Amino acid sequence: MSAPTQRPSVVYGRPVTTDGVRNLYSGTSVKPWTPPVPGIDNLGITSVDTFAVPGVGEYTVPFDGFVRVVRSQPTSEEWSKAEVYTNLIEMKMEGSCEELGHITVTLNPDCLSTGQIRTPFDPYAGEGPAAKACRMAVGAIFDMPKLGLRLANKEPIILTIDDVRQIPPAGSPGKGQIYRMLPLHDVERMDDSPVAYVTSLRFTMGGYLPWERFGSEYKEFGK
Amino acid sequence: MSAPTQRPSVVYGRPVTTDGVRNLYSGTSVKPWTPPVPGIDNLGITSVDTFAVPGVGEYTVPFDGFVRVVRSQPTSEEWSKAEVYTNLIEMKMEGSCEELGHITVTLNPDCLSTGQIRTPFDPYAGEGPAAKACRMAVGAIFDMPKLGLRLANKEPIILTIDDVRQIPPAGSPGKGQIYRMLPLHDVERMDDSPVAYVTSLRFTMGGYLPWERFGSEYKEFGK
Repeated sequence: MSAPTQRPSVVYGRPVTTDGVRNLYSGTSVKPWTPPVPGIDNLGITSVDTFAVPGVGEYTVPFDGFVRVVRSQPTSEEWSKAEVYTNLIEMKMEGSCEELGHITVTLNPDCLSTGQIRTPFDPYAGEGPAAKACRMAVGAIFDMPKLGLRLANKEPIILTIDDVRQIPPAGSPGKGQIYRMLPLHDVERMDDSPVAYVTSLRFTMGGYLPWERFGSEYKEFGK
Repeated sequence: MSAPTQRPSVVYGRPVTTDGVRNLYSGTSVKPWTPPVPGIDNLGITSVDTFAVPGVGEYTVPFDGFVRVVRSQPTSEEWSKAEVYTNLIEMKMEGSCEELGHITVTLNPDCLSTGQIRTPFDPYAGEGPAAKACRMAVGAIFDMPKLGLRLANKEPIILTIDDVRQIPPAGSPGKGQIYRMLPLHDVERMDDSPVAYVTSLRFTMGGYLPWERFGSEYKEFGK
C-alpha cells in the first residue's frame, strides 16, 4: 500500500517519489492537453494476455483489475514540452481459463516498474496539439495455483499507449510490445530456462476507481 | 575476456556457463538445421542506430565491431525441438557522426545480457524444417567522449533475428525491437530522467572472426 521501503534490485527507469503525493479516485477531473500536478492514479485496467507453455499449448486469458500509478511533477506546464515520469506502485489483475486455472498478476517486488509520458520523436501528423506516447516497463508475477507455479518476467513487459491526449490516459487501449515471445521464469528457479512465455498482450486503461474499491486500509487516502 | 567473476545486479534471462567451452573463430564449420555443441562464437557485427537527444536532434550512426557469445548445450539434438541459451560475454562496436563524435558501445558490466534460440510459437508457414527465432536482451554502455557522456539503457535492448536456419545465425539481419524510443541514462545519474533515446536499431550478424582480431591476449583460445 505504501511505497517500498527497500530499493528493488532491478530498476527499469526513473524512480518517482510517493512522498506527499495525493491519491486520486473517482470524481477526479482530468483536463485534456494539460500536464497535471503529481498524483497517485488509482485506475481500473483490463487485459487480454496469451500464454504459451512449450509442449502444452497456448492459452488466451482475459484479466480485470486495478493499477496504482504515481506521477511526477511535469517537466513543463506546456503540454508539448512536458515529460511526466511514472512508477507502477501496485497492480492486481485476475483472470482464468480452464487449462491454467485462476491467475493473479501482481507487481514483482524485486523490480521497480517505471514509465514515462512524452511527445514522441515520430509524432503522428495532424492538427491541434501533438498527442503524447506513454510507455511503462513492468516486472510482474503471474500466480497460477492450479499449476503450482508462480512465474515472473526478467525482461520487462513494455506496455505502450499511443495518442495520449490527457494524463492519465484513462480509457485508452494499449499494447504489450512483445516480439513473438516474452520469457517467464519460475520464481523458485529464476536462473533456469523459461517455463512459459507471453506471446501477446493487449490492455485498456480504465478510469479512476472509487476509494472503497481498495478496501478499508485505503480509507486514509479517501477524499 | 573471461567470464565475470561477480554476478551482475541485473540478469535478463538464463545464465550460461563459459567453463570448459571452446572459443570458435574463422574456419569453424556451421551445419544448417543442426544444433551445435556449446561454443563461444567470436563474430563480427554491424549496426545502424538512431539516437534522439531531446531538444538537440536525431542522429543515425553506423557501427562496426564484434561480439562474443557463449552458447549452451542444446536441449535436444533434434533441430525442431532444440532450445539454445546464450549470453553475450563481450561486445565492442565503434561508430561516429559529426554531431555526436566517436561512439564506443560495450556491454554494461552491471547487466548479464542473455538470449535464446528456439522455434517460435508462430512459425512462418513453409516447406522443410521450421526456422528458429533468436532473441537477446542486452544492457549496453554508449561512450560518447565528445559530449562527455556515458549512456546506459536500463530496459534491455531486445535484439531479434528471424528465420534462423543455422547456429550461430552469421550473416543474418536483425532488428532492435524498439517501440518509438528506448531511454538512455547518464551512467553517473542512472536514477535521473533519460538524457537520450535510441529510436531505431538495425544490425547484421557477421561471420566468425580470426582469433588474431582479438589481440594477443586471446591467443590462448586460438585453434
